[in-house]
Amino acid sequence: MSVKTRVLVVGLGLIGASFAKAIKQAGVAYVLGYDRDPAVPGLAIDTQVIDEAVADLSSVTSVDVVVMAVPVMAIAGVVEQIRHLVADLTVLTDVGSVKGEVVRSVAGVLGDLPACFVPGHPIAGGEKSGVLAAEADLFKHHMHILTPLDNSSPAAVELLTGLWTACGAEVVAMTVQRHDEVLAATSHLPHLLAFSLVDTLARESENREIFKYAAGGFRDFSRIAASDPTMWHDIFLTNRDATLSILRRFQSDLSLLEQAIEHADGDLLRTVFTRAKSARDYFTEILESRQK
Amino acid sequence: MSVKTRVLVVGLGLIGASFAKAIKQAGVAYVLGYDRDPAVPGLAIDTQVIDEAVADLSSVTSVDVVVMAVPVMAIAGVVEQIRHLVADLTVLTDVGSVKGEVVRSVAGVLGDLPACFVPGHPIAGGEKSGVLAAEADLFKHHMHILTPLDNSSPAAVELLTGLWTACGAEVVAMTVQRHDEVLAATSHLPHLLAFSLVDTLARESENREIFKYAAGGFRDFSRIAASDPTMWHDIFLTNRDATLSILRRFQSDLSLLEQAIEHADGDLLRTVFTRAKSARDYFTEILESRQK
Repeated sequence: MSVKTRVLVVGLGLIGASFAKAIKQAGVAYVLGYDRDPAVPGLAIDTQVIDEAVADLSSVTSVDVVVMAVPVMAIAGVVEQIRHLVADLTVLTDVGSVKGEVVRSVAGVLGDLPACFVPGHPIAGGEKSGVLAAEADLFKHHMHILTPLDNSSPAAVELLTGLWTACGAEVVAMTVQRHDEVLAATSHLPHLLAFSLVDTLARESENREIFKYAAGGFRDFSRIAASDPTMWHDIFLTNRDATLSILRRFQSDLSLLEQAIEHADGDLLRTVFTRAKSARDYFTEILESRQK
Repeated sequence: MSVKTRVLVVGLGLIGASFAKAIKQAGVAYVLGYDRDPAVPGLAIDTQVIDEAVADLSSVTSVDVVVMAVPVMAIAGVVEQIRHLVADLTVLTDVGSVKGEVVRSVAGVLGDLPACFVPGHPIAGGEKSGVLAAEADLFKHHMHILTPLDNSSPAAVELLTGLWTACGAEVVAMTVQRHDEVLAATSHLPHLLAFSLVDTLARESENREIFKYAAGGFRDFSRIAASDPTMWHDIFLTNRDATLSILRRFQSDLSLLEQAIEHADGDLLRTVFTRAKSARDYFTEILESRQK
């Protein structure tokens, strides 16, 4: 790009700020930043996360790309504030965990889905949050999923692929529905199980005494139960169908293991555990191959 | 101790060999070692894990302590081979994950439970296995649970407390039943859920393609699904009642979350997630306080 793409990032939390910092460092964009906390854009400038602070979204003109890096349930409010830009935008995108809900929100405000709109979701994150936790390397070796709509313009997909590739991400495309099914299985259900198990144990155990005896396996398994309750509340309410579908399949499979334990069916236990270990070892190989 | 305690460790896998190495390094014991693989005791001598190799258990005389560091389902066979020692032993113990089954095995062979017998279980482990993975620090900052029986001698409990404390472990006592309930909750159920989820996803997904999109949360959650299928098969068959009990409470609680998602009951979701996060944060504090 001879002239830098002008990118407006709305929401300078961990994801938004890390994306801003990464494309700024890569030299592919001039980055404007807005946050609902008026103190944040100044911090973002001081820490080289963005080039220019935006105090009021309604005053912004002439940007090429708007990235909505806010919680899924806040998308509609952002679209309201940037609707004056949409007709002229090359790209409108987001980073939310549930793509179906984001598409419903955008359509709800704008009435239809503009060709510039390509929803997206980087499969990365971290335990810290906020603009000061921004890391330009956050997306390196991670997937970025784009979910182009039927009328999304190829130019918009191409421009986003370039920006996320510049962050070090591997960009893949799939449908909105497929994305929400995949994330329900690999992320939303595991979080639900971890929250649920930790709560069951905490309520079973007087003064949480049982946790004193837990070891490394439990530590790793339950780490995601320390995630933000409000964010996960939003995810389960907005990705209801896909989550319920995989949850019910899991419950059914778990009942088979329950019956195998009850009836001392060692063959079934060994078969399932062996198959699971093989799949988990395969997953380890994927992770290791990405680091090379 | 002016004269070193003579300790026979039967089974020089990760746990047995690490215990042997730790008490030998601490200078509190003269350690004899046996393994069903005849090549192992020689390796254990070469690597300073034990002082003396035992080729044939029936030929051993005059030891103070026997530690059976073999899988739970192999305990009965070991007791058969050391029954000539039991009358003179100060201590007979083990390191198995399911204490009820170990007690049943010992009683099955000996007819009754000798006063020297104090079952035990170190809450530690590692991904590697075998004598060459032995680490003298493996038990440092970890719990060692002793489950004294009604007739266990106080001298036996005291001697074992001294040996495990010398390994750096924090020794606690509880009943056999309580141990098996606590481990069912904090270790056995999480393993079952991880095996079950990974298997559900692997079977749902053509060519395991779905794992490509999994991130760090899933990696940590599912790590224990790479554990040894045979060992876990044994654990669920031998700790059936306690595992089924906590599993069913979990299934019931999970069904409440399923219904909350179905009926968009955000309050219930937020309440459970918030309670779980608080309990998991408490667990993090426990882990951190142990490292101090």
